Amino acid sequence: MKKPKSKIQNSKSIISPAPSPKSPAPLLVVGAVAFDSVRTPYGEAENILGGAATYLAVTASWFGPVRVVAVIGDDLGEEHLQVFRDRGIDTSGLVRARGKTFRWSGEYTGDMNEARTLETQLNVFEQFSPTLPESYLDSEFAFLGNIDPVLQLHVRRQLPRARLVGLDSMNYWIKRTPEELKKTLAEVDILVINETEARMLTCITNLKKAAEAIRKMGPGTLVIKRGEHGVTLFSEKGIFCAPAFPLDEVHDPTGAGDSFAGGFMGYLAKAGEFSDKHLRRAVVYGSVMASFAVEEFGLSRLLRLTPKEIKTRYREFKNLTHFDV
Amino acid sequence: MKKPKSKIQNSKSIISPAPSPKSPAPLLVVGAVAFDSVRTPYGEAENILGGAATYLAVTASWFGPVRVVAVIGDDLGEEHLQVFRDRGIDTSGLVRARGKTFRWSGEYTGDMNEARTLETQLNVFEQFSPTLPESYLDSEFAFLGNIDPVLQLHVRRQLPRARLVGLDSMNYWIKRTPEELKKTLAEVDILVINETEARMLTCITNLKKAAEAIRKMGPGTLVIKRGEHGVTLFSEKGIFCAPAFPLDEVHDPTGAGDSFAGGFMGYLAKAGEFSDKHLRRAVVYGSVMASFAVEEFGLSRLLRLTPKEIKTRYREFKNLTHFDV
Repeated sequence: MKKPKSKIQNSKSIISPAPSPKSPAPLLVVGAVAFDSVRTPYGEAENILGGAATYLAVTASWFGPVRVVAVIGDDLGEEHLQVFRDRGIDTSGLVRARGKTFRWSGEYTGDMNEARTLETQLNVFEQFSPTLPESYLDSEFAFLGNIDPVLQLHVRRQLPRARLVGLDSMNYWIKRTPEELKKTLAEVDILVINETEARMLTCITNLKKAAEAIRKMGPGTLVIKRGEHGVTLFSEKGIFCAPAFPLDEVHDPTGAGDSFAGGFMGYLAKAGEFSDKHLRRAVVYGSVMASFAVEEFGLSRLLRLTPKEIKTRYREFKNLTHFDV
Repeated sequence: MKKPKSKIQNSKSIISPAPSPKSPAPLLVVGAVAFDSVRTPYGEAENILGGAATYLAVTASWFGPVRVVAVIGDDLGEEHLQVFRDRGIDTSGLVRARGKTFRWSGEYTGDMNEARTLETQLNVFEQFSPTLPESYLDSEFAFLGNIDPVLQLHVRRQLPRARLVGLDSMNYWIKRTPEELKKTLAEVDILVINETEARMLTCITNLKKAAEAIRKMGPGTLVIKRGEHGVTLFSEKGIFCAPAFPLDEVHDPTGAGDSFAGGFMGYLAKAGEFSDKHLRRAVVYGSVMASFAVEEFGLSRLLRLTPKEIKTRYREFKNLTHFDV
């Protein structure tokens, strides 16, 4: 399977001009919409709206228009759909199926770097095979949240005009369907995964070498999430490191990775360019959004952000990392 | 016990002018001189010159004059002393005692973030109580490497003209002599420890809160080492994060922390100023030296550095972290 000609490294040869910053192209996101039950040292929340697609869509919506693709059950009501609509998110790709919405419950203890999953109910997600609505087929930017790589590829191939496609995955797929995952990797531009997953995918401990190996699998750009240690970007232009924002209190880490990806891809779709300069900025915007996400349970903090807060925290990241040459 | 008036926050009120960059003030370093035996996935080395004082002195010597304080045994020969002399290090504080030099052996496996100690022989170190030679007593800059906090305080109090004193410690002292360590902390300006130790010292998991608690114990400036995840600086001016330099191969992590501290303090002694700008630069120079240290076994890489290589890697750190606002 040949790579589509939408790779970052080829971006300069793309004939269609980048959209002006005033009218950013929509970002398509696919993943789970879920009801989460979460327990952390700061409290607990039951059946709150969550899932990768939700966090991706809400964070990206702070940068430009978003189209969401996911399956929802009978139990997801008007009040939940309103959360998407209030953020101007296009919900024509939300498919209603008979049964219950995907449910996840987990808890965080100690340094809260990793969730302990208490229960996962796939429910309507079990039969999910995303067919995009007609109106989504012209999407130039997409992020394929962490679902079965076969489904991710199925979505990817419905996007002939894609200029930039990002992908998330996890240990489950790396172990269980490595061949399918590699096929999908060959057709995307950016992979966003965590440190452990990068090592698992390549069987290489050294992160720099693991990154080189992954970039040869397809995605010219790789973002490795390191939790409280920040994020490292590997691209043809070299390496960029961003720290995580030091917070006094992390109330709920759920959705941090998806919020990073939403901010990262949301910024790139808005910029319409994928030069090193923009990739670096995108990493910082992703880190900004992740830092807000964890300040409160669920989506609360992300829903009541202001553009000014986002800008201010972006500048705080600059102050956090700046030194003179 | 009142803090000596040499704290960073008071640096502006110091009457004596900072030495000009052409004649940096000497940095005094104290710690172990040792023979190390190390095994890593890249090979092994037997009885090579090491120890905190050695790594501190050699790395700092790339920035300005260094005075070393340590105890050595009969088995430390002329060829080892020559290593110090070749780097222009003042060895009048090396005390020869009857018996064998301190010995440590350890191995690194997996991600090489932590050594497994195979054997520690204190030898002459057991009776060590550092009394400084007359010629060292005017030292304005000192770094007290990881030894018994009682000895560290003993050295600190022999330095009435100290303008900046840094300290290292470890889990062993935090558990075993917490009161003595706290006494010593109250009389130093900078503490350089790792993440786990910062949490252990304060019983606080959140690193930002732990840092605030430590800064209240005495050292106005705190540097938290995070291994392959870099370094975080906490000072009255806020927080600064620097990544670790991404290397293809880490051959021997021994001495990385001491090399960081040597570069960090060496730069500050050379600059003669401790403003936020210089503290940030010092953190990067420390990270530069640590990144060289681990490239080869023992001191090899550090001994055959060039000023140009140091400058180049410093710029590479800039490129690694820079983004536009």
